[in-house]
Amino acid sequence: QTLLPGEVKYIRLRTQQEVWDAIYLLKVRGAPAIGIAAAYGIYLAMKPAAAVAYARFAERFEEALNYLASARPTAVNLVWALERMKRVVTGNVGESASSLLTLLKEESLRIHREDEHACRAIGQYALPLLKPGMGILTHCNAGRLATSKYGTATSAVYLAQERGYGLKVYCDETRPLLQGARLTAFELSRAGVDTTLICDNMASHLMSEGLIDVVFTGCDRIAANGDAANKIGTLSVAVNAAYHGIPFYICAPISSIDPACKTGADIPIEERPAQEVTDMWFQKSMAPPGIRVRNPAFDVTGANLITGIITERGIAKPPYERSLPEMLSPI
Amino acid sequence: QTLLPGEVKYIRLRTQQEVWDAIYLLKVRGAPAIGIAAAYGIYLAMKPAAAVAYARFAERFEEALNYLASARPTAVNLVWALERMKRVVTGNVGESASSLLTLLKEESLRIHREDEHACRAIGQYALPLLKPGMGILTHCNAGRLATSKYGTATSAVYLAQERGYGLKVYCDETRPLLQGARLTAFELSRAGVDTTLICDNMASHLMSEGLIDVVFTGCDRIAANGDAANKIGTLSVAVNAAYHGIPFYICAPISSIDPACKTGADIPIEERPAQEVTDMWFQKSMAPPGIRVRNPAFDVTGANLITGIITERGIAKPPYERSLPEMLSPI
Repeated sequence: QTLLPGEVKYIRLRTQQEVWDAIYLLKVRGAPAIGIAAAYGIYLAMKPAAAVAYARFAERFEEALNYLASARPTAVNLVWALERMKRVVTGNVGESASSLLTLLKEESLRIHREDEHACRAIGQYALPLLKPGMGILTHCNAGRLATSKYGTATSAVYLAQERGYGLKVYCDETRPLLQGARLTAFELSRAGVDTTLICDNMASHLMSEGLIDVVFTGCDRIAANGDAANKIGTLSVAVNAAYHGIPFYICAPISSIDPACKTGADIPIEERPAQEVTDMWFQKSMAPPGIRVRNPAFDVTGANLITGIITERGIAKPPYERSLPEMLSPI
Repeated sequence: QTLLPGEVKYIRLRTQQEVWDAIYLLKVRGAPAIGIAAAYGIYLAMKPAAAVAYARFAERFEEALNYLASARPTAVNLVWALERMKRVVTGNVGESASSLLTLLKEESLRIHREDEHACRAIGQYALPLLKPGMGILTHCNAGRLATSKYGTATSAVYLAQERGYGLKVYCDETRPLLQGARLTAFELSRAGVDTTLICDNMASHLMSEGLIDVVFTGCDRIAANGDAANKIGTLSVAVNAAYHGIPFYICAPISSIDPACKTGADIPIEERPAQEVTDMWFQKSMAPPGIRVRNPAFDVTGANLITGIITERGIAKPPYERSLPEMLSPI
């Protein structure tokens, strides 16, 4: 995903180190895709341990969990997927390594498949919010490239496209790494969607022109009170949407909900290298040498700014303290 | 200014064409600097007409006015400076071309000198709003590089720096042309100011962290009701400042006030080439080929979002319909 849109290249990851690197270096990115990749990473990590005893297997498994969990701090889906993998091992004490391996492989495939279904369901719940000809703003990439299929924030767009809605989608370019310009504009325009690229700072102006009817973004972690951490710049979009009276929806699978975080203040925000801001593609400097830089990769959008949280189980509405636990309770 | 911060190079403009090109190509930019350059441009345009009769001089003068006025549409200072130059010619009917030339030269130098004084006065009015250690956010470049000295939005920062206030200034990089990263971060850090560069979409997050105490920006045109057109992204900053309860000030000479525009809706917004957004430095594409792009160079910040408008004559406060005419009336 660091080569797009200039080059389309598929990479094959064979070891947990390769998976860790791919997540850390953003070759795989997007909260759901990170979770899926980490699940496969666990399986790859344990494959060489096909002949060890349970105790040794469990020990090495714990090491692999900690290692992969360290790749990125903000998206809860990473930890969530690793927890699911862990339950396979802790729920089958004494089982042979080879059976455990089979179970881990199945679980990782299940996580992948479930995400596809979750994305489609999110789109189905979001679709009734759209009308033909509407203008939609999205930030960063919560599309096909961030998930296993359909995307989260883009899912309703793809479903509407299949139904000939003629939507107009505006993509924030999403500085510093330009996931909107490179990924969202790429995947949507390839799918035939009427797509317009803007700089992040233009969204408010387009809202004031009446071009935006609704905002859909993805999300990396949702706290128990509905505060949502997502790509840096999401807060600004949400504040501007509220000011202009435009509904703002978070689209995310329930695996992005983290009841352990009471509010957004409990969500760790990753600070990334200054060079991402000062040097375009690490090639040419666009800022004076040695300038101090802040580069938070995410921000937290207060629950008060969020019209609804669209998951595979429906649309949670405020007060989120009540609607999110309902969403999480077993069906 | 298109070479900074990589290269510091002074250019000498000898003809009105060179001045027009410099303004159009953003080698000279910033509303006050554009006005000053245009005034000098008029003098350069008329220099070859030192021996013609008044009628012919006035005719050629009109052509030069229209030509230079066409370089950029949004900043009113351009038109304002040209109007001042025009009054020299219309106020001295029948005067010899060589006397008119002398008068035009004097007027252009006066416009330049007055801007220096205006910038310093803006800083003196803004300084009492600051306290040592405060965090200030600015957008685009309304500094030394956009004016003749001190800048408008930066003037109080420079005065505070002389007094050892230890301010922390945060510069929005200001996509697409990165005037904040390339120019403001450059000039402030060279002056020893504690400067931090951020992407435009990070401002709201920094506000939520409590790092920003006040916002100062420049302005390209102020309507009679206080609506202010400035670099694209200013509206978003103002909306976010209002949401976070942070005062937002426009800093501009009274030449930026255009009573002929009733509201911001009357201010023309320049739309610039898509390539500024899709290609960094027109070198490497960062977006899929052929993607549709919006690239408005400015936006309008509603008067309701502006805490005060700081000019060389003091701070205008709402209601601006009353305070701006007072500011413009002869002292």
